[in-house]
Amino acid sequence: MIAQNWESKAKIARDILEKSIKKEWLLPQEKLPSKDRLNVLSVAKESGILSDAELLITETDATGLVEKMGVGEWTAEQVLIAFTKRATIGHQLLNFATEFMFDEALEEAKRLDAIYQKTGKVVGPLHGVPISVKEMVHFKDRICHTAYVSWIDRVEKEDALMIRNLKAAGALFHVRTNEPQTVMHLDCNNNIYGRSLNPHNLNLTPGGSSGGEGASLGFKCAAIGIGSDIGGSIRAPAAFCGVYGLRPTMLRNPWKGVSLAGDGQESIRCTLGPLTNSLRDIDLFQKAVLDQEPWEEETNLVPIPWREVKTPKDLTVGIMWNDGVVQTHPPIKRALNHAEQRLKSAGVKTVDWQPFKHEQGGEVTKSLLFPDGGTCIREALEASGEPAMPLSEFALNYAKHLDIRENWELNVKRDWFRDMSHKLMKERGVDVILCPTYVGAAAEHETAHYWLYTSIWNLFDQPGVVFPCGFNVDPALDPADDKFQPLNDIDATEQKKYAPERYTDAPLAYQLIGKHFRDEELVANAKYLESIISA
Amino acid sequence: MIAQNWESKAKIARDILEKSIKKEWLLPQEKLPSKDRLNVLSVAKESGILSDAELLITETDATGLVEKMGVGEWTAEQVLIAFTKRATIGHQLLNFATEFMFDEALEEAKRLDAIYQKTGKVVGPLHGVPISVKEMVHFKDRICHTAYVSWIDRVEKEDALMIRNLKAAGALFHVRTNEPQTVMHLDCNNNIYGRSLNPHNLNLTPGGSSGGEGASLGFKCAAIGIGSDIGGSIRAPAAFCGVYGLRPTMLRNPWKGVSLAGDGQESIRCTLGPLTNSLRDIDLFQKAVLDQEPWEEETNLVPIPWREVKTPKDLTVGIMWNDGVVQTHPPIKRALNHAEQRLKSAGVKTVDWQPFKHEQGGEVTKSLLFPDGGTCIREALEASGEPAMPLSEFALNYAKHLDIRENWELNVKRDWFRDMSHKLMKERGVDVILCPTYVGAAAEHETAHYWLYTSIWNLFDQPGVVFPCGFNVDPALDPADDKFQPLNDIDATEQKKYAPERYTDAPLAYQLIGKHFRDEELVANAKYLESIISA
Repeated sequence: MIAQNWESKAKIARDILEKSIKKEWLLPQEKLPSKDRLNVLSVAKESGILSDAELLITETDATGLVEKMGVGEWTAEQVLIAFTKRATIGHQLLNFATEFMFDEALEEAKRLDAIYQKTGKVVGPLHGVPISVKEMVHFKDRICHTAYVSWIDRVEKEDALMIRNLKAAGALFHVRTNEPQTVMHLDCNNNIYGRSLNPHNLNLTPGGSSGGEGASLGFKCAAIGIGSDIGGSIRAPAAFCGVYGLRPTMLRNPWKGVSLAGDGQESIRCTLGPLTNSLRDIDLFQKAVLDQEPWEEETNLVPIPWREVKTPKDLTVGIMWNDGVVQTHPPIKRALNHAEQRLKSAGVKTVDWQPFKHEQGGEVTKSLLFPDGGTCIREALEASGEPAMPLSEFALNYAKHLDIRENWELNVKRDWFRDMSHKLMKERGVDVILCPTYVGAAAEHETAHYWLYTSIWNLFDQPGVVFPCGFNVDPALDPADDKFQPLNDIDATEQKKYAPERYTDAPLAYQLIGKHFRDEELVANAKYLESIISA
Repeated sequence: MIAQNWESKAKIARDILEKSIKKEWLLPQEKLPSKDRLNVLSVAKESGILSDAELLITETDATGLVEKMGVGEWTAEQVLIAFTKRATIGHQLLNFATEFMFDEALEEAKRLDAIYQKTGKVVGPLHGVPISVKEMVHFKDRICHTAYVSWIDRVEKEDALMIRNLKAAGALFHVRTNEPQTVMHLDCNNNIYGRSLNPHNLNLTPGGSSGGEGASLGFKCAAIGIGSDIGGSIRAPAAFCGVYGLRPTMLRNPWKGVSLAGDGQESIRCTLGPLTNSLRDIDLFQKAVLDQEPWEEETNLVPIPWREVKTPKDLTVGIMWNDGVVQTHPPIKRALNHAEQRLKSAGVKTVDWQPFKHEQGGEVTKSLLFPDGGTCIREALEASGEPAMPLSEFALNYAKHLDIRENWELNVKRDWFRDMSHKLMKERGVDVILCPTYVGAAAEHETAHYWLYTSIWNLFDQPGVVFPCGFNVDPALDPADDKFQPLNDIDATEQKKYAPERYTDAPLAYQLIGKHFRDEELVANAKYLESIISA
């Protein structure tokens, strides 16, 4: 009985998605890529559904789009249609969407165009920019379920504060995106919509938990995406899908109006942040949001605007080759080698960064993510009877019920880690840490187990930007390491997951870590370093 | 056996105090005020121990002292000696000190004077300013026990960050001050040193928990004092002793290096803040501390410097006559009436402020202050076997053990209160709320039970400044209210505590509440309002 119930409830959400798809923009059966084709990045171009102008629009970053709309070259309607067409195809290939909102967005686009025609001015810094949004973020009068079947009856009364801030800046919202069950996988699969795929290689996950966003930006279904990150959920999908992402310092971006099991957990906070197709778009996004002063409504936020900063002249980059616990796959080493060489050639000072107790930090992180013993999540699953997926069980396996005082002791430890890490960066004279985002370039479905390359920075609360290297896994350059010496069992297991042919075309990316609350400096430094490394 | 142990351990701390007192500055037996004299404010003047110059020095605020030292009129040594003399007499009368640190401070004063002589410049914004410090704040190589007998063996390895910040600004530390058992009384009594007294009326408490600081500033034993506040512990002593105090927004001032039972509790955070003898000294103090960028070491802090602000031209003052739960004693009403009349005459807009659900907020506060069921405090008491005092039992009576999820739910409620209170101030167009600090002008010993006039603003995390009205309880003007209509039992009990003759000479004060994170605006507004109300 329960089994039937949850399945019929899941169908409600799937029906909403199904009805929201514009059928005329779907690829006809005969144009679908062949079953053995893994890299589908160019299918939009080949489809004939987008005009050349529309293809150009979708390959333009948000900053570029606003420029073009600002001089009247493109209209918001035209931009919206181009991205929604691409998103429709993208969904057909990657299963990344949970709901299209085209009609509402079109109405808004027309309103923006009318204002532009009248005034000759854009309404705000994100005028007409189509943004995809992780499903867990509220939209007024729409269901928000966070991938829990049992929550499919929750209709939200109000847009999330982030959405209202972005609407005030002129943004459009055309599609909501998929997330894994519990939103605690670096993968993207659930009992409602099933699995989302990576556009670079369908055998790979787009990452998670903002996996739908990774796929969306990777296939250029939106100019900007909104993800959330409590342990890597923006950065992993950005890296896996070859796009840009920012996990800001906690309490900078608005959070109000996001559904997450375990509201009120404050030891390690989840944050919203952007996925983009350029670093300058991260600046554009952050400035547009914080200029709305979200702290005037969500008083927990720190009232610091997005500051303008200059890149320091004598930048020192710490390169963290691995975290001392689990070593990386060969392509990641190649990517870091490439960066080091480029930086040295350009005269940028680099030093090797010795990781600071990541294993111990990882233990604290695991405890602090589920101090309720995972009961909030379990209850949300059990309320419908939907089965827990293997990666949910894997994450919940960390969950140990703490009492209040154990939680307090871990808060003190967490603060010690934060202070020490900040101190070490200063003592070592390191401005930013360049490091892997994950053990590999991406992960095969259901195999992403090792979070620590991203989650450690949530514990330390240091902001992180992901940017692509500009090249991909290449079996000719990235053979498996025959002489690999594992540090421990997990290291051995993770390295065994590597074989070059499994990761063909997976994009390579860097994670750049900045100092606590120095998000602006981090993004400025990332721009500078990208211009050297990925040029 | 245990009883003997705790008493001998308590004696260790008392011996340290005893040895630290400069006997030559004590009042001789024959000069001690008579037993029936309750107001001892002028004893320093009458003592003959301080010269006229020294009296003048001790009646000068910190800003004035630095000005005088900056032009070479007074030396740091002279200033230190003047305040330490006065503090010695003050301690004799009020039992407010836990340890004098004159010798160390004198050495530092001489160093400052030598630098000044050489350079003609002060070393920092607090050059030579003698500061008294609540005992719970760490000093290197000195015991820190937070009034727990069992902690008397804890010798600290490092000065608290606040102390290091202030030393860098040129401050001197000549005396540490008393606090109540558990530091959770609005009173000041413990098993180690006993009870501190109010210089305006020895039958009254100086307040708490920073009661030693209240007495210190009230008797002008220091130019600035450092207290801590989680529920009123800076504001109550400031009000009871007729001085100024700031409870800043959480996470602005450094906290690292303060001993408190229950480290890691973050739902309502304790903060350090200044007690002073003028409002401009609050600005001086805050700017001096935050200019040291304490967030570079204690990364939890919000990196916002102490901003320069202007008083808004069209200030609207909300007057909260009472909190809707417990009405105030007649002198408090007179003080608020006085303020309203003065403000109206000066053309400042006032409106009546309807309190926002203080009773419900109070319930949340109580739960969040002791979610461990008070076990941290109980263990600290039981470790020595010292008896719990009545006001400790009273506070611990609130303590209810919560599980993690109950704590999370209350965090969500707390945020709702914060957001709503901020929203209401904006909707009502109110810049600051002028309100009572306590149900009465002060409290008789062991009778301060009602915290909600201060603790509600800790829950809402709105900064609060206390400033004196400039007049005191006057039996002729403040008769008991024969027609008093209690709202409830607690209201009746609290009102019964009032009889004018019990509170003679108790100073009257205002609490001014600002918006979350708008500490600078609050202090600027307080200056402006004080110039109108208390002139």
